Amino acid sequence: MVKVSVVGAKGRMGSHVVAAVNGADDMELALTLDAGDDLTRIDRSNTDVVVEFTVPSVSLGNVLTLIAQGVDVVVGTTGWTDEKLAQVREAIANGPRPSDQKVFIAPNFAISAVLADYFATKAARYFESAEVIELHHPNKVDAPSGTAIHTAHGIAQARKDAGLGEVPDNTETDGGSRGQVVDGIHVHAVRLRGLNAHEEVLFGNAGEQLTIRADSFDRGSFMPGVLLAVRKLAGDAPTGLTVGLDNFLDL
Amino acid sequence: MVKVSVVGAKGRMGSHVVAAVNGADDMELALTLDAGDDLTRIDRSNTDVVVEFTVPSVSLGNVLTLIAQGVDVVVGTTGWTDEKLAQVREAIANGPRPSDQKVFIAPNFAISAVLADYFATKAARYFESAEVIELHHPNKVDAPSGTAIHTAHGIAQARKDAGLGEVPDNTETDGGSRGQVVDGIHVHAVRLRGLNAHEEVLFGNAGEQLTIRADSFDRGSFMPGVLLAVRKLAGDAPTGLTVGLDNFLDL
Amino acid sequence: MVKVSVVGAKGRMGSHVVAAVNGADDMELALTLDAGDDLTRIDRSNTDVVVEFTVPSVSLGNVLTLIAQGVDVVVGTTGWTDEKLAQVREAIANGPRPSDQKVFIAPNFAISAVLADYFATKAARYFESAEVIELHHPNKVDAPSGTAIHTAHGIAQARKDAGLGEVPDNTETDGGSRGQVVDGIHVHAVRLRGLNAHEEVLFGNAGEQLTIRADSFDRGSFMPGVLLAVRKLAGDAPTGLTVGLDNFLDL
Amino acid sequence: MVKVSVVGAKGRMGSHVVAAVNGADDMELALTLDAGDDLTRIDRSNTDVVVEFTVPSVSLGNVLTLIAQGVDVVVGTTGWTDEKLAQVREAIANGPRPSDQKVFIAPNFAISAVLADYFATKAARYFESAEVIELHHPNKVDAPSGTAIHTAHGIAQARKDAGLGEVPDNTETDGGSRGQVVDGIHVHAVRLRGLNAHEEVLFGNAGEQLTIRADSFDRGSFMPGVLLAVRKLAGDAPTGLTVGLDNFLDL
Repeated sequence: MVKVSVVGAKGRMGSHVVAAVNGADDMELALTLDAGDDLTRIDRSNTDVVVEFTVPSVSLGNVLTLIAQGVDVVVGTTGWTDEKLAQVREAIANGPRPSDQKVFIAPNFAISAVLADYFATKAARYFESAEVIELHHPNKVDAPSGTAIHTAHGIAQARKDAGLGEVPDNTETDGGSRGQVVDGIHVHAVRLRGLNAHEEVLFGNAGEQLTIRADSFDRGSFMPGVLLAVRKLAGDAPTGLTVGLDNFLDL
Repeated sequence: MVKVSVVGAKGRMGSHVVAAVNGADDMELALTLDAGDDLTRIDRSNTDVVVEFTVPSVSLGNVLTLIAQGVDVVVGTTGWTDEKLAQVREAIANGPRPSDQKVFIAPNFAISAVLADYFATKAARYFESAEVIELHHPNKVDAPSGTAIHTAHGIAQARKDAGLGEVPDNTETDGGSRGQVVDGIHVHAVRLRGLNAHEEVLFGNAGEQLTIRADSFDRGSFMPGVLLAVRKLAGDAPTGLTVGLDNFLDL
Repeated sequence: MVKVSVVGAKGRMGSHVVAAVNGADDMELALTLDAGDDLTRIDRSNTDVVVEFTVPSVSLGNVLTLIAQGVDVVVGTTGWTDEKLAQVREAIANGPRPSDQKVFIAPNFAISAVLADYFATKAARYFESAEVIELHHPNKVDAPSGTAIHTAHGIAQARKDAGLGEVPDNTETDGGSRGQVVDGIHVHAVRLRGLNAHEEVLFGNAGEQLTIRADSFDRGSFMPGVLLAVRKLAGDAPTGLTVGLDNFLDL
Repeated sequence: MVKVSVVGAKGRMGSHVVAAVNGADDMELALTLDAGDDLTRIDRSNTDVVVEFTVPSVSLGNVLTLIAQGVDVVVGTTGWTDEKLAQVREAIANGPRPSDQKVFIAPNFAISAVLADYFATKAARYFESAEVIELHHPNKVDAPSGTAIHTAHGIAQARKDAGLGEVPDNTETDGGSRGQVVDGIHVHAVRLRGLNAHEEVLFGNAGEQLTIRADSFDRGSFMPGVLLAVRKLAGDAPTGLTVGLDNFLDL
């Protein structure tokens, strides 16, 4: 049984993590902490893996403390910069377990979204045309989504690597309907009440189409990815810092 | 048996019409004419209904001649303006059959597209959100499609009639991914090799979505609509000029 | 302001209704009752419309009591038979407001599902082929869904009324993949973790396809339909018993 | 320039191949042969790669002759058994170029279909639920399609390899709507006028869905795969017999 503590346990994501850990046969819930609680209560005597879902302003501090406590950490909080990641790597090197500490940070724990992004990059070189449509709830303030931009960049890079030219497009007159062009790839953002987070990647050749779509209906969609990361850290994950759930998928 | 003549019989659409008439149990192919042929060979002794699929520059002249010949006409050629339509009405009034001549003109003969447009207008008042995505082959020069603009206007009008306000959209930063706003409705245009002509209308409320999609895979998709129009003209269509296939659908 | 009381207020659906009424600008929440509470506390002095979401075994009794109390009722509980509906009609006739009492019962309050069903019936006569795919969570015990069966019957009836024959199907060998044939229409049921309740109706002609899809992502999807019914009963709904949300849609 | 000859050049597929070769910048059309033509006219002096699209009853003989002529062969004809493949391998070993002869046989040249199948196998282990829907024109005599059966087997094997149990399904009553169960995976077949060959693979976890869909709209959809195979045989394809287009994709 993997002993799992949760930091940010009362938060929107953290409460889902608590429920998911309680529902997993191979895990037991250890400590559940929230803002104001003392993180040094967590150590290797009571915890194998910590799941940290808080806010960007406190997450780095939390992770550095947990590294000093010698426990492995799965981080779901967003807002990580290269500079912050460097601080994590340095803390691991100077911490109590420089040779076997494991920290995992992911911008997206939805397995469907991570797979869609990966498959899109793999497929890109085999099609003349490619476009990305992302669809979200209307409360989202940025468009297009970071995931869609990431997917578009991945497709563009794969096309370049394969020597493909620009996507075919004879449009002469347009009032904006052709969307945002990200690295040569047209990206469209739909905002619709009732939706959560969705992405559809369309590829076309003469006579054929390939469509890859990921739907995240609610926050529960991140839990299989979180549990997968916990198991990997308790198992055969590489030591040190790992960024991105695709590193833990066997693809 | 309805005797059907085809004008523009060797053209891309006309050749499909010839095949469709030959394949219809209740029709027989009469004359097939093309550029340079004498349209006055067509009259009521040999033809009940003419199908005219040519080019905008000659279509009006063809239709006026056919009205003078006293035959009913289904017109698939595009490019009709209010002025041209007025000339057709005048020609009917001054022609040999002012009281029972029938002329039918349609911008779109794809039944699926006409139905999708109609259903979208009906559904619009019941949803907070609505967006339109049209998808076409990359050789299309205009974006978005005329059909998508028509659908967006219909949705917008239905929303206004029902007293609905603007669609919810909290987007603060966007580089163009939210598409073209037509009368308050966001319209997106995808261009993908392998596609022909497709439209998807998305409606959303809290917790629910309604999607209506029309796919036109090839020119054959117009034939059921053309045959329906021929049967209507040979049957109970109203006399005079009728514009739009929705007039012949029982909705 | 319409005064709305909720019976079954602590139930899965009832608690959504309480929230929806609280969120509606034109309604105010009156009484919220649950199992064991005295329904005769509800009367015209405190309530315009009652929303009743309980269980089939008690719903008829509740409705009869509420009719005797003289309040209008929207019923979301399922399990209504012709016999039970007759008892409701009789209670209205013998109640305190025989000439202006309004009672509304609906098997499905999801507007998207009701519209999809209605549009499918309208479209059916114009296509050679039609099939229905319903998709639900894997805990559902019956397949296909009642809604899918209803849709298939509606399509079949529309085809018969229009003189259409059987759908084309040259399948010679099949191990069950062609689904259940309901009144000549093939119906497929998908069961997938993560889904809630979804239905897709596919229509095809040579070269074209029309797809109508309704997604109900969660119970909140029923609230727009419930609020619509409340407004109709407080407004211009016909007196007596009305069954089915399509009666309140302007189609 | 790769010199390409086509055997079965007047056939439904062969005529598309002729057009595709003529449209490729890096290929030139050499000989075009059909039934009754002498295959020994093809040799290394005039041809680098032959594309053979005929019928199962003559394909093996053609391939053996072409191997004896010393030219590399791309075979699109179906109906290959293990026994026939063994004969091809033997012919290569005993032919004029045992060490560098290349023969390629593929059951499906649609890149989108091959990728969808491959991605489905990769994704399978990460989802609780998986189902397959294939959709074809109504003239198809077998259901489900061979491709859908292949995909279902691949998903089932991947689930077993990962230690996953059965897909969740609480269905108690069903009249056939749940489809055909292939190795534990439910497979549904839709037959709709207007469609050609399509496959959709649905994966589900709590709160999320991944959908992979391949559409083949017409025979032209096979040409990018055929040209890819020709280029591979003229390039770095392994010597000997290769079966399946996935071997030529960089995945």
